[in-house]
Amino acid sequence: MEAFSDGVLAIIITIMVLEMKAPHGADFADLRPVLPAFLSYVLSFIYIGIYWNNHHHMLQTTRHVNGTILWANLHLLFWLSLVPFVTAWSGENHFAPAPMALYGVVLLAAAIAYTILQTLIKKEHGDHSLLAEAVGKDLKGKISMLLYAVAIPSAFITPWIPGAIYVLVALFWLVPDKRIENKIKTAED
Amino acid sequence: MEAFSDGVLAIIITIMVLEMKAPHGADFADLRPVLPAFLSYVLSFIYIGIYWNNHHHMLQTTRHVNGTILWANLHLLFWLSLVPFVTAWSGENHFAPAPMALYGVVLLAAAIAYTILQTLIKKEHGDHSLLAEAVGKDLKGKISMLLYAVAIPSAFITPWIPGAIYVLVALFWLVPDKRIENKIKTAED
Amino acid sequence: MEAFSDGVLAIIITIMVLEMKAPHGADFADLRPVLPAFLSYVLSFIYIGIYWNNHHHMLQTTRHVNGTILWANLHLLFWLSLVPFVTAWSGENHFAPAPMALYGVVLLAAAIAYTILQTLIKKEHGDHSLLAEAVGKDLKGKISMLLYAVAIPSAFITPWIPGAIYVLVALFWLVPDKRIENKIKTAED
Amino acid sequence: MEAFSDGVLAIIITIMVLEMKAPHGADFADLRPVLPAFLSYVLSFIYIGIYWNNHHHMLQTTRHVNGTILWANLHLLFWLSLVPFVTAWSGENHFAPAPMALYGVVLLAAAIAYTILQTLIKKEHGDHSLLAEAVGKDLKGKISMLLYAVAIPSAFITPWIPGAIYVLVALFWLVPDKRIENKIKTAED
Repeated sequence: MEAFSDGVLAIIITIMVLEMKAPHGADFADLRPVLPAFLSYVLSFIYIGIYWNNHHHMLQTTRHVNGTILWANLHLLFWLSLVPFVTAWSGENHFAPAPMALYGVVLLAAAIAYTILQTLIKKEHGDHSLLAEAVGKDLKGKISMLLYAVAIPSAFITPWIPGAIYVLVALFWLVPDKRIENKIKTAED
Repeated sequence: MEAFSDGVLAIIITIMVLEMKAPHGADFADLRPVLPAFLSYVLSFIYIGIYWNNHHHMLQTTRHVNGTILWANLHLLFWLSLVPFVTAWSGENHFAPAPMALYGVVLLAAAIAYTILQTLIKKEHGDHSLLAEAVGKDLKGKISMLLYAVAIPSAFITPWIPGAIYVLVALFWLVPDKRIENKIKTAED
Repeated sequence: MEAFSDGVLAIIITIMVLEMKAPHGADFADLRPVLPAFLSYVLSFIYIGIYWNNHHHMLQTTRHVNGTILWANLHLLFWLSLVPFVTAWSGENHFAPAPMALYGVVLLAAAIAYTILQTLIKKEHGDHSLLAEAVGKDLKGKISMLLYAVAIPSAFITPWIPGAIYVLVALFWLVPDKRIENKIKTAED
Repeated sequence: MEAFSDGVLAIIITIMVLEMKAPHGADFADLRPVLPAFLSYVLSFIYIGIYWNNHHHMLQTTRHVNGTILWANLHLLFWLSLVPFVTAWSGENHFAPAPMALYGVVLLAAAIAYTILQTLIKKEHGDHSLLAEAVGKDLKGKISMLLYAVAIPSAFITPWIPGAIYVLVALFWLVPDKRIENKIKTAED
């Protein structure tokens, strides 16, 4: 399951760069229209990176997998596979309200899908499993989902609000999930 | 063999999303022309997911592989690699009869290729192998092929018939193949 | 090395399908212009499949790898990565002489690169290694290269000659390399 | 971490070939406009190959990985993922000054990212680790970064200077990093 997920995430992260078409002119000024696409690429790269990082840590604590978990994983990959589309749409339209809102919808759906996957893995491994103890009540995950839910409608006030929220949540997660890392280290000792 | 197949399936599932071009307008209404492409993407994502899931379970019971099995596997990947093409053709043409029929042809060919691969692996491992006992007469596989065969010509009556059949067969397989899962669990005990 | 090569081959085999653009019309007749692209896709799929198959068998006999072997492997992947380009060029131009000749150049270069890689691996493992004994004088490889060398100039007489040669050589290799398979089996007993 | 990185590098190396669009004409002369794209593809293929090769050797000496290392690795992959973009921009504009300078910026940033990753892995494993002893003061890495820093502004004198520098540095690294290879061999004895 990890090899397949790694493959899909590796492809998602890389094909987004294909949306940044090389401009026809040969001056630095010709790069200016590519800038929004570049910025949304950077943000999406970081989000996919965060998911890969957390997914990787979560699977390290996973001993057995069943068919339901495989589908919950595919469900997560489905939402993440839409990231290149919403990245391209926001980038091309210079972060207009509707694309920014849809970006949030995809992030929210991916976060929900991740929570479902995490819950199923926790259930399969019991309440005292490494993952269950490391993640706890998953406050970080819940706050992120709440923030996405705020970001989506606020895009129609001004797209700067969801923009700021998406950057903030990304920074917030950029710190690797030490919770699982520490639990694994303790378990090994 | 599994790493290569996983790679190909991961790429197939992800490049399909490239066919969903980000619209030029920045309103939600501009997404409407993308809707058929999105729907056919969802269906194809589920089909590739089903194949990955079943393929993964089948290879778990596989101990040895020969050259013929490697080619039977490539034969399956060949038909699955045509899924993005028929997905794009159906999506762009709002599920017109010919694209819907061709979608069925590819699904039928992939199902036949899967059956060939399964038969070869069963033969290599003997009648009392895990896979042979788990799959049995493979009624589920046979009914699916029959349904595809019905769907193809019926597209020329109305494309709603194959549409309904493809969704139905997908739902029918969405349930992971517990047969193999249970057999593996029993064998381990 | 195998994981990376498998990844590259999986991507090559799959991105070729992107060159087959879904036609705008929704009738079977609209597929006719796609036919040459489809035929060249089938041929290239088989060639990449053959390389994957043989590469896989060769690496099974490989115990240690050095920097030179890593680069010889990348050299092979470089030529194979050009297959999608020559496939698209031949397909779009309905198998005109120059594209057919260039297709042969790429196949010849890939065959030479494979021979170099094979020679280096044999050298690293000694004359009595599994691979050395299985491959022997590699008559099959040498005949293929000779046939490609004939095919290239003959494209300018008529593109049917290289066309026939490429199909012939593919069929000739489609049979998995039992030499290595048998040697491995014997070695295991 | 290696599987994911291998996946990303395999995709980067392969999607660059998609930028080389098959020309519409069917004569060898029609390939001439593709030549700059081909040359920049060859150079970028070699650079990604070098990174893969060195990355592979470095990870062979790596025993444990933490969250910071995972992000340093993603940071490296981010810069390498921009290689297809700058390759396309230089190729399309026949190696004009600005694209050649930007190519150098991406190479410099990737080299810095590699140095950061290497430093973090060395720190995690201690001063007497295999990697620390093999790489030493990493003179080769430092000279490369210096040369990129010279190449970037010199593009505005004539793009031939950065062109020559990028080819030179590539040749300079094409020789696999025997330092690590030898250290591993010695450690095994």
